[in-house]
Amino acid sequence: MSSPPPTTQRVLIELGERSYDIVIGAGVLGDAASWAGLPRASTAVVVTNPTVAALYAPRVLDALAPHYGRRLLVELPDGEAHKDWRSLDTLFDRLLAQACDRKTVLVALGGGVIGDVTGFAAACYMRGVPFVQVPTTLLAQVDSSVGGKTAINHPRGKNMIGAFYQPVRVLADLDALDTLPPRELSAGLAEVIKYGPIADETFFGWIETHLDALRACDKAAQAQAVRRSCEIKAWVVARDERESGLREILNFGHTFGHAIEAALGYGAWLHGEAVGCGMVLAADLSVRLGLIDAGYARRIAAAVARAGLPVTVPPGLATAHLLDLMRVDKKAQDGAVRFVVIAQPGRAAVREVPDELVARVIDDHRGA
Amino acid sequence: MSSPPPTTQRVLIELGERSYDIVIGAGVLGDAASWAGLPRASTAVVVTNPTVAALYAPRVLDALAPHYGRRLLVELPDGEAHKDWRSLDTLFDRLLAQACDRKTVLVALGGGVIGDVTGFAAACYMRGVPFVQVPTTLLAQVDSSVGGKTAINHPRGKNMIGAFYQPVRVLADLDALDTLPPRELSAGLAEVIKYGPIADETFFGWIETHLDALRACDKAAQAQAVRRSCEIKAWVVARDERESGLREILNFGHTFGHAIEAALGYGAWLHGEAVGCGMVLAADLSVRLGLIDAGYARRIAAAVARAGLPVTVPPGLATAHLLDLMRVDKKAQDGAVRFVVIAQPGRAAVREVPDELVARVIDDHRGA
Repeated sequence: MSSPPPTTQRVLIELGERSYDIVIGAGVLGDAASWAGLPRASTAVVVTNPTVAALYAPRVLDALAPHYGRRLLVELPDGEAHKDWRSLDTLFDRLLAQACDRKTVLVALGGGVIGDVTGFAAACYMRGVPFVQVPTTLLAQVDSSVGGKTAINHPRGKNMIGAFYQPVRVLADLDALDTLPPRELSAGLAEVIKYGPIADETFFGWIETHLDALRACDKAAQAQAVRRSCEIKAWVVARDERESGLREILNFGHTFGHAIEAALGYGAWLHGEAVGCGMVLAADLSVRLGLIDAGYARRIAAAVARAGLPVTVPPGLATAHLLDLMRVDKKAQDGAVRFVVIAQPGRAAVREVPDELVARVIDDHRGA
Repeated sequence: MSSPPPTTQRVLIELGERSYDIVIGAGVLGDAASWAGLPRASTAVVVTNPTVAALYAPRVLDALAPHYGRRLLVELPDGEAHKDWRSLDTLFDRLLAQACDRKTVLVALGGGVIGDVTGFAAACYMRGVPFVQVPTTLLAQVDSSVGGKTAINHPRGKNMIGAFYQPVRVLADLDALDTLPPRELSAGLAEVIKYGPIADETFFGWIETHLDALRACDKAAQAQAVRRSCEIKAWVVARDERESGLREILNFGHTFGHAIEAALGYGAWLHGEAVGCGMVLAADLSVRLGLIDAGYARRIAAAVARAGLPVTVPPGLATAHLLDLMRVDKKAQDGAVRFVVIAQPGRAAVREVPDELVARVIDDHRGA
């Protein structure tokens, strides 16, 4: 039985003059009140993709009407393969053709790709315009829309070109999760699961007992998962906005994950699927480094599997190639590959790991 | 007769944790001491163009040797026409191919184009790496290398895509000015002249009496011109890093200038030439607004002319087209075109000006 729907909640990301609220609730994207108090401008530009536009653009444009005299809509092609310079340039071209000035507010309506491209466009357009994140996927609500990381991909690597640039507000509408394909819901759960082992063992226990409710779109469970994930991310980001230390722990599972994504070609696996598999490998790496026991790594692998995510490296990806890809990943410093590992249940650490050990972990988690 | 050469000077740009020094002197780019105390990294990448590389790259690479284990050189094509995404992507591709990590220090060795492209690349590469400006033109030494404005051009407008991103140091080597073509020296003088009417009437008087010495590359005069220009710019930037108010005064002459540059096609006129002509028009606009007397505008026009810069709008540029270009310029807010004007000798202000008046000023300064 479904629990009663939760009320709208706010999580503050404290970053001095760049502080902002994450508004979490059902129906927030279509509520004009959600859009009050933002920077004033003549024009707001909603950036989205065709799928999301059909579902939510009219509601967002209506809710913007009391606040912005001119409301434009720009649709970019859907999918990770389009998180590139071409999409960015399409957006710049439209903004310039419409004489959008440096006060123009951009609204990123969609998942991580839309959020990353729009956020980076906001960081660069006329050297910076304000933007609002309206994440419509679970992944974006609990991860990519929070914390100001924006980027596009480069043929030689994912997220290689980007900026740290904070939104002025995030509107996480839980109703949007109802229209999400199950595969994308699972991908989002990867990042929710992540926050447990790296930062909050109690939350990890809660996740383990609520995975089925989360996959069934129970609103109270979703509200709790999104709020706690955002709180943990906010806590980390407030302490290390530009990823010079602590923030790195949010990349648990990502070094393996990025390499798998790149080797498969962007778009074959969803980001969250790669991260899910990456966490299984990173947990095993933590065991082999003597940090946690095998039972805890099995709990992580079980949660990933129960979220509907892959737990093995796809066959056909050469280990040496994956290692090469990790070396060019931005978490490589001075040539040594660094991994986020679990130091103890609910606490992460960063370790430089010899290639041989990384290779062994990959080889031992290969799918049939 | 030439004055004795000045000693090396430092001007501090005070921007809290983003503060940095401008080192001004003869021979500073080839002095290993100039490069001490910068962020540590395994790799420094010198970004330059073929002309500047031939003159200075070996000296810079030698001076970097005590500080960085690996020193790479990337040459980008020369000229404003190449201040675009293509050059940026060439640089990203080289950095990724060489597995440059997120600590890599970029060195922008060249004029404004190299500084702007390299600075923007530094802002975006892996979401930000440190960079050093080594401006080799007068224009870059007194203007573009100071203050953290970086950008590339877009087919629809100049400097439309960029970031506010501060260097970790600026090395302004006066010896580099000896190899500068006279036309580029004049272009740099446009920005030097600018600082007088907008901020320091005493400095304007000094400029008027030292223009010949400056054109003759007198080192003491150059040192004074570069130092005072940087001090004024530093004062303005420290009060308004992200151009939300005061900093706009640095654009005196630029709204007219950018429109002329864009209408002629980038590269036909040097930026400083367009700014020189733009200042003559903006001074006349100030007279017509009743702010200054015609005699002061004539002094500005005389200084621009004596610096070897154009003072009339090239024939064949339609006034309506220039007005259109100004409207899309980033200084247009909410549709009204804003101009930096001289409020009184040594003080600038910003005014919204009706199109008819702007058109009259353009028409009255048309070349034969």
